[in-house]
Order: sequence, then structure tokens, then C-alpha cells
Amino acid sequence: MKLLTETIQNIKPLDNNSMSLARARQETLTKPAGSLGRLEELSVQLAGIQGRPLPQIKKKSIIVMVADHGVVAEGTSAYPQEVTAQMVLNFVHGGAGINVLSRQIGAGVLVVDIGVAADTAAFPGVIQKKVAPGTQNMCLGPAMTLEQAVQAFETGIEILNSEMKDGPDIVGTGDMGIGNTTASSAICSVMTGKSAAEVTGRGTGLDDKQLEHKIEVINKALSANKPDPTRPLEVLARVGGLEIGGLAGVMLGAAACRVPVMVDGFISGAAALIAAGLCPRVKDYMIAAHASVEPGHKLMLKHLGIKPLLDLDMRLGEGTGAALGIHLADASCRILSEMATFAEAGVSDKAQ
Amino acid sequence: MKLLTETIQNIKPLDNNSMSLARARQETLTKPAGSLGRLEELSVQLAGIQGRPLPQIKKKSIIVMVADHGVVAEGTSAYPQEVTAQMVLNFVHGGAGINVLSRQIGAGVLVVDIGVAADTAAFPGVIQKKVAPGTQNMCLGPAMTLEQAVQAFETGIEILNSEMKDGPDIVGTGDMGIGNTTASSAICSVMTGKSAAEVTGRGTGLDDKQLEHKIEVINKALSANKPDPTRPLEVLARVGGLEIGGLAGVMLGAAACRVPVMVDGFISGAAALIAAGLCPRVKDYMIAAHASVEPGHKLMLKHLGIKPLLDLDMRLGEGTGAALGIHLADASCRILSEMATFAEAGVSDKAQ
Repeated sequence: MKLLTETIQNIKPLDNNSMSLARARQETLTKPAGSLGRLEELSVQLAGIQGRPLPQIKKKSIIVMVADHGVVAEGTSAYPQEVTAQMVLNFVHGGAGINVLSRQIGAGVLVVDIGVAADTAAFPGVIQKKVAPGTQNMCLGPAMTLEQAVQAFETGIEILNSEMKDGPDIVGTGDMGIGNTTASSAICSVMTGKSAAEVTGRGTGLDDKQLEHKIEVINKALSANKPDPTRPLEVLARVGGLEIGGLAGVMLGAAACRVPVMVDGFISGAAALIAAGLCPRVKDYMIAAHASVEPGHKLMLKHLGIKPLLDLDMRLGEGTGAALGIHLADASCRILSEMATFAEAGVSDKAQ
Repeated sequence: MKLLTETIQNIKPLDNNSMSLARARQETLTKPAGSLGRLEELSVQLAGIQGRPLPQIKKKSIIVMVADHGVVAEGTSAYPQEVTAQMVLNFVHGGAGINVLSRQIGAGVLVVDIGVAADTAAFPGVIQKKVAPGTQNMCLGPAMTLEQAVQAFETGIEILNSEMKDGPDIVGTGDMGIGNTTASSAICSVMTGKSAAEVTGRGTGLDDKQLEHKIEVINKALSANKPDPTRPLEVLARVGGLEIGGLAGVMLGAAACRVPVMVDGFISGAAALIAAGLCPRVKDYMIAAHASVEPGHKLMLKHLGIKPLLDLDMRLGEGTGAALGIHLADASCRILSEMATFAEAGVSDKAQ
């Protein structure tokens, strides 16, 4: 609990001075004021996060947290649980969507087993941080103990801190875990106050009847656990997942280190709700990469007050949306640093 | 006129066989079917355009057409006309927004003087293809002759054909020209049938009164010229611009060579309306990079039946939106080519 508490204490406000300087520089660049829209805003936010007037996105890390979910016993996923571990192997072999999109932007991918039901120790390169071999079935009681929830958080913080030796300029969040849209919908319902029916979607591909069943399962889990939205750690323990806790830890750790977090889709959004519940200021360090197809996701982002960069009907997870979003963050920094000013280029500015 | 006619005749339907193969492969990749949303659709379109089941976006070209507009005499722009030539110099020095975003994606930038009012011959690397030193004031009569309109088109086709020696896998369109949102709004009004008030925006930054004046100027130009939407070449000649004609030529030329066109914002959208007016099939070869802030742009895209990839409140032009869109096109091809299949990765597919 000490690491978690200290990390939250270390999350400071954005650097207003760097933001003002970035904003002022944007006005001098050879383009009509504001004409690069959200890229301009993004560059200013990144200046405030990194604490420098010319932020940079050179080293990029995607952290993929992987865990299983006891609630799959209720039949809420279109895929069998064994797929979680199979996908870990796919990650380390470089064949998954996140590998492809990370290669495109030159980002490293860290794969963390924080709670896979199978043994992944033989898979080369997987960071072994298993808190438990999956959560318990949340329809029958809490998904994990409060101690495990803290451990999941602190694992995320430790991974981030250890990654800081390489000094990433941005971190993208990614997830894998069969059943994790069920847990994320439950978290979304608790934290936003919306009904399970409003925040639950088809995940990897449920039909109408299966979707109805998934909503029932979530309602059952919420009745069994009665999570209180003012106690985010408890929400995670009762209806969350280990990878969700780990990602929330990554977000807090990154904010404490002044590293921007490119928040992927629905699962990362659930982690963001938990992290922001513990420390609202962490939201300033978040960038929402994209709007997921999952219906709860837009509600999450609205609740967090952050607006997605992309809306491409994606719902894969793994950090795939984050990888695309990092390209835009990088673009925004390059614009701020590399564009010529009106004075440098000898271009006449707008008549005042 | 011969080159234009032949080019249009050479625009063939998309390759259905390659599209079917691409679609089938998407279903075998290690992700829930459809979970990469618009990236999947885009890869299928690119397969159909390039005529191969595994399309590739390696060599990328952004073609920036630059020209001046006689209508600026009416005071429709926030910037003086001299900025057009100054920006050409900024382009060749690498200091403009499009230079920055092209470097990020490894794209080449071709800068074409197709109608700048000043002499740009001394600027290194500018392709000299001046049809006229700017258009005439369209409030007083046609912006250009029909011969000049054809020449602008054919210049675009020639530039594209000459660029084909380097075999670009995708072409992005870009523009520069003080006054060109006025011409583009006029084209938009004619081709979509909407009023000038509905399709006219603030361009580089007009205030309310200036915007009202711009709408009056466009109405004056439309009354003076009475362009007929069923005669797109005439529309270009009467209320268009040389860079708009050049870009329409690039689009037709690219489609004839089976090269996808990443269509930038409002000015490129006007060119797309003209090109599609001459040859509706060219739309199959277009990808809309982004939704511009200019109010007419969404109406253009609706009229063309193409949906923008990005919506980032941008309105710079130059091809900046196209450069960001090309990253997504590249991502879609990499996903299709590089992701492992369920069989290759030993991952269990969804229970059927």
C-alpha cells in the first residue's frame, strides 16, 4: 500500500509555464492560428505533462497487461479461456495486432502476465508478475481480495518505474484477457452510475441472446458484491480484473513520472476510471486514443472528461488504439518543434 | 483534352477478386472478426485499388498544388496574396506543416506551381507548371478559360504519370493558395446544390462580418457565371482554381494507375467533386483523410459518399490531413500482411 500511496502523492499538476510557452509558440508557426485543431491542443497538454515547452515523443512503450477472469465460468465470452495464454504466445512471437501497430511506430511492447490462468513462464520475454491465476467468479463473491487489488496496482507502478530506466516519452496501455469486457462493464456501471444494460456490449462477438445473458451476469455480480463507487480499490477487488488493476497502476505511475499515458479502449478505460477515482489529477496525464465500439466506452470517456482522438469502430484492445494514437501525439510534438515560424520563414502573418 | 479523355477511359473498376481474398484473410487473423473496424475495410478497399490481395503502402507521395485566386481582390481572405509564394518557399525549405507530417511518415512532397501570381522559378525544387499567374476575379467573369481548365487537369495527370516512375503506393493531395476556400465553397455550392451560406466557412480565420462578405462574393460569382453542375469542367473554369483542377487531374491519373488517393480537406474535396463529376468511378479510388472544420466539407464528403478517417478540427490544408490518413492506410495494410492467422499462432478461434 505504501508504493501506491506515495505514487499518488507524487502526481503533481501540469506545468503551466511549459503549456503557456507551447501555446505561444503555436501562434507563431506558419499556419493560421488554431488550424491544426486538436494536434495543437495535444502538443500543449504534452508540454504540461512532460514539463518542457517542446515536448517529444521519441521512445514509446506499450504495456500489455494480461489476466484471466473467473466470471467466464458463466459463459460471457465468445472465446474459450485458453485463448488468453495462446495470445500471450502470439504477442511474444510478434504476430498480434499490437505487435504490428507497435512496429509501425517504433514502440516497444512489454507483455506482463499479471494473472493468466495458465503458466506462461516458458514463453520468452513475458514479464512474470502473476498475482493469482485469474480472478474468482465475481457472481459468487469478490473477484479478488483487497490485498490482491493493491498488489495488482503496485505491480503496474513497479513495471512503469522499471521501464523508466529507458526513459519512455509516452506509455500506451494495452490488455488481453478473455472475459475482461464483462469486468470492465461492471466497473463502468459502478463508477458512472449507469445500468449494466447501458454499458454492456458484445465484447469479442456475442449475439443478442448472449448479450442479454452477459448483462444478467453483470447484474448478478453487482448484486453479490455491492461495490461502492467512492471506494475504487474495493470496486476493483469486487468486480474488476488483475490486468485492469495493473493498468490503473501504470497510469498512476506514469503520471507520477510526468509521462503521458495513451489510454487504449474499453478495458483501459475501466482502469482509467479506477485510477481517476483514487486520484482525479491523473486524468490530466491521460490522452484517450480512440472511441471503442463498446457502448460503455463513450460513457467512460464522458465521465473522465477526455475526448477520443480516433473513432474507427475498433474493439480489439491489446493497445491497438493506443498505438495509432501515439502517432498523433508524436505528430503534434513534431509540429510544435519543427515547423518554421512566420519570422523564420519570411511569411506575412494575418493582417491584425 | 486527349490525355484527360484517355485517362478517364483507363479508370477501371476495383479488383473484386483481390478484395474477396483480402476480406477472407481478415477473417483468419488472430482477432475477433471485424474488431479492427475501419482499418479492416480500408485494407479491403486498398486491395481492390492496387489489384493485389496484400496491398502495401511503402512509397508515399504528397502532391501539393499551388495557385493564386483573382477573387482575393474582393477581400475574401485574412492573409495577403503574397503569402502563397512565401509558403512555396517555406515548402521547399521544409518548414511547413506538410513537410513535418510528411517526414514523420517518410513521404516525399512534390510542390507544383500551377498558377502562383509571383515567379517561383528561383525556388529550388518547385515543379514549374504555371498555367496562368493566378485566376481572374470570378465576380467579374470566369476564373479561367475552358482551355486553361483542361490544361490544369492535364498538368495534374502529367505530374502523376511522371511520379509513377518511382511507383508510389499511395498519393496524398495537398493545396496552397490564398483565396482557395472561396473557390472551393463556390464549387461545393454548385456541385452539391447547397446555398453559399451553408457551404462557406471562415477559411484562414475570418470574423463574422468578413464571413458574411465572403458569402456575398460567392453569390456574386455564382450569379455572374451561372455554372452548370452537369458540366464539371465548366464549373472549374468559371468558379474554380488552377490548383483545384490540378488536384482533380492527380485524382483521375492516380485512379487510372490503380494508385489510392488520400484526399485531404476542403480544397481537395472540391477537386474530388469535379473529378467525380467527370468520372464517378474515381470515388472508389479515394479515401477521405479527415473532416475539415470548413462547414462545406462534410457536405462534400456526403455527396461523394466517402467517410472521413479522422476528425481533429483541422483546417490547414497543404495535405496535412492526408499525411495523417496515410499512416492509417499503411497500418491497415500491415495488419492484413503481418498479423498471424489463428492457424499459424495456434490460437483457438471463436466457438461456432
